[in-house]
Amino acid sequence: MAEKKIPYKIYLEESEMPKAWYNLRADMINKPAPLLNPKTLEPMTAEDLAGVFCDELIKQELDDTTAYVEIPEEIQSFYKMYRPAPLVRAYCLEEKLQTPAKIYYKFEGNNTSGSHKLNSAIAQAYYAKQQGLKGVTTETGAGQWGTALSMACSYLGLDCKVYMVKVSYEQKPFRREVMRTYGASVTPSPSMETEVGRKILEAHPGTGGSLGCAISEAVEKATKTEGYRYVLGSVLNQVMLHQSVIGLETMAAMEKYDIKPDIIIGCAGGGSNLGGLIAPFMGKKIKGELDCRFIAVEPQSCPSLTRGKYAYDYCDTGMVCPLSKMYTLGSGFMPAANHAGGLRYHGMSSTLSQLYDDGLMEAVSVPQTAVFEAAEAFARVEGILPAPESSHAIKVAIDEALKCKETGEEKTIVFGLTGTGYFDMMSYEKFHDGKMTDYVPTDAELEASFAKLPKVEK
Amino acid sequence: MAEKKIPYKIYLEESEMPKAWYNLRADMINKPAPLLNPKTLEPMTAEDLAGVFCDELIKQELDDTTAYVEIPEEIQSFYKMYRPAPLVRAYCLEEKLQTPAKIYYKFEGNNTSGSHKLNSAIAQAYYAKQQGLKGVTTETGAGQWGTALSMACSYLGLDCKVYMVKVSYEQKPFRREVMRTYGASVTPSPSMETEVGRKILEAHPGTGGSLGCAISEAVEKATKTEGYRYVLGSVLNQVMLHQSVIGLETMAAMEKYDIKPDIIIGCAGGGSNLGGLIAPFMGKKIKGELDCRFIAVEPQSCPSLTRGKYAYDYCDTGMVCPLSKMYTLGSGFMPAANHAGGLRYHGMSSTLSQLYDDGLMEAVSVPQTAVFEAAEAFARVEGILPAPESSHAIKVAIDEALKCKETGEEKTIVFGLTGTGYFDMMSYEKFHDGKMTDYVPTDAELEASFAKLPKVEK
Repeated sequence: MAEKKIPYKIYLEESEMPKAWYNLRADMINKPAPLLNPKTLEPMTAEDLAGVFCDELIKQELDDTTAYVEIPEEIQSFYKMYRPAPLVRAYCLEEKLQTPAKIYYKFEGNNTSGSHKLNSAIAQAYYAKQQGLKGVTTETGAGQWGTALSMACSYLGLDCKVYMVKVSYEQKPFRREVMRTYGASVTPSPSMETEVGRKILEAHPGTGGSLGCAISEAVEKATKTEGYRYVLGSVLNQVMLHQSVIGLETMAAMEKYDIKPDIIIGCAGGGSNLGGLIAPFMGKKIKGELDCRFIAVEPQSCPSLTRGKYAYDYCDTGMVCPLSKMYTLGSGFMPAANHAGGLRYHGMSSTLSQLYDDGLMEAVSVPQTAVFEAAEAFARVEGILPAPESSHAIKVAIDEALKCKETGEEKTIVFGLTGTGYFDMMSYEKFHDGKMTDYVPTDAELEASFAKLPKVEK
Repeated sequence: MAEKKIPYKIYLEESEMPKAWYNLRADMINKPAPLLNPKTLEPMTAEDLAGVFCDELIKQELDDTTAYVEIPEEIQSFYKMYRPAPLVRAYCLEEKLQTPAKIYYKFEGNNTSGSHKLNSAIAQAYYAKQQGLKGVTTETGAGQWGTALSMACSYLGLDCKVYMVKVSYEQKPFRREVMRTYGASVTPSPSMETEVGRKILEAHPGTGGSLGCAISEAVEKATKTEGYRYVLGSVLNQVMLHQSVIGLETMAAMEKYDIKPDIIIGCAGGGSNLGGLIAPFMGKKIKGELDCRFIAVEPQSCPSLTRGKYAYDYCDTGMVCPLSKMYTLGSGFMPAANHAGGLRYHGMSSTLSQLYDDGLMEAVSVPQTAVFEAAEAFARVEGILPAPESSHAIKVAIDEALKCKETGEEKTIVFGLTGTGYFDMMSYEKFHDGKMTDYVPTDAELEASFAKLPKVEK
């Protein structure tokens, strides 16, 4: 019963909030491979990246030796608007599962963007502002990143141009309206505003667009418009750095109550949430100070870690962005149309890819109907309607808790609950109506995609 | 600068959370008038109400002498899932307005129901469960109450039947899906399931329904089904009692930091949020222990306090429910079709009506375009996308803060931010597109509605 002293929700005091981000790469023995210039296949230099990204963010992108990067005062203030995020003890879920496991989740959904994306959006917008830029461009698919960036830009008085995959733009008018509320301009992609957009529209008149195409438009707009740069919400090292605030807060909250994790679980698309959540714990594991399992959870329909190749690949479908060494399904891979929510990126953060390749992290893939079952069970006892993405982590946390029930082990399980599902009710509806299906790409499909990987001798 | 010691968000410790609700009526000098039996026009007795409401809730409804009612242990546990709600210091809004006023808001939107309605939903579901009932019925319009009740019933394993105004059912499929996620059955009203529904459909085939009609169906279903009772999310005394948790937490948080309110502001539809927020502060004012203004904010299109009559009226359009003495626009009054969000009830809680009549509380009405302007300005600096209902309070809080700017007064303004606007993006879209209009009922319209008030000599 001493156990019960741990509150349902652990909130740090403002004074306990992190003052520096943690750069896991500084402590990694095998560093992630560098980005390559798509034209020369040589490592990207700061100069190569200068026209696309902000100067300070380029520094962060390339720096794999500085362990702690101070969080600027203004970003710390912004974080206080919606952070600390609670570390929640899932007492109700434990009781429902009748498990001896202790389950915790770090809930990042208590802000209007509805997800953890805001942690990096404000940082990227801040450095753009510091550099005296007028605005930034980006792409968005499901819409969480676009919403987060709109909020950050609105707060700092920066212009924000979002290219939203046309099919999402039409199917998710509410996401679009949230971005407009924050003063962003939202353009369905492909559009007539860019050369690449016009080309695509000419070749495929009624296309619904793709994330790859939206990236290409956003990059073109940024590089061709005075005072603008391009920003991205996942995959990049800088994003992992900013998202480390999730893990740092989680660790501080756990240390406050003397809790030690046995398993840390997160959903993984490009890796922004998982990378941030595990960063400081992984640092300790690498140093031999912590014995803990890390599990990346991905959808069976887009299984980059569990079925992808560890190879250099393009970050975008348009093949204009740098090449990254990562677990990838091939830059042309698209999950089947029945796939719900995000986690649809073909590759994985190079940092997480390296950790996985080094055996420091595990990965599992799960079918989406099982994910929605877990989501609904969770919502009913914990009172939070989870995003489909986050529910991948819920599914595996429940699985691990049920294993503990069999073995009687009192393991401490921590998972990342990245956001809320308010804008995903169409997928929930499909699930309720029994119309949701699972999809697993065939080996032949993957082989065909792998065959198109660029040939890089590194 | 000592000021800055107050954190952006004040969270109480679990041990500081209220353990009893506060019943303001116990301390009121002029008690609210009793409910009347619609057939006899005599005060409703517990026996009269027994078939409709749960026994314990009837006790709470009729008890105007017990000041504190213990919150059952199980409800306290449930509250810990999503409470304490933060009391937020609106530093960013203050800076934007350049006001010397100190602005605080109690944010009730950090739970999946998206509003404060859950505070009473769990209490009502709990007492139904205690009584050994199988389930409860209710109606919902905008959907917040239905969602909250679904969550509470799912948690306790109670059946939940929601009659949702048909036009909302069709226009807000996502709200409906959230309720289904929590296992509620959601029926568009009018339906063929009840006698009153069938009658209405016969007379008006193709009708979009109304809240009054949905109430009548829910009451009929409850009274005609073994093991069921009817529950309601606003207006009633029991609801004010449960919602006092808002005010009690607010007061505890303010006392912790030695903050004294000068003005407390809340939006008012039936009064559930405002009544709960102000309860303990009003109690102190009545006892002469606090000098503070209270402002109820209502929409110009449904101005029950500012333009209504203080008279006995039916609580529902179907005239089957008890009569309540309240500020009312007449039970047949419906706000114009352009009215966005909730706050569309024709009357006002009898407690708040009495306080207003006694001059203990002020009321103002505001046009909806101004409300959405305030909502958007707030969202951009405070990072929370407010519900249209809550934004009525934001509008008046900003107005009062700007008055302080003129006079240089450092007043402390507290307002209730009842919920989030994720399911109201259609209204935001109208606003962004310049298609939102204001509506003010004419005197003639109101007079026509007043003419139909029941004749009661009390």
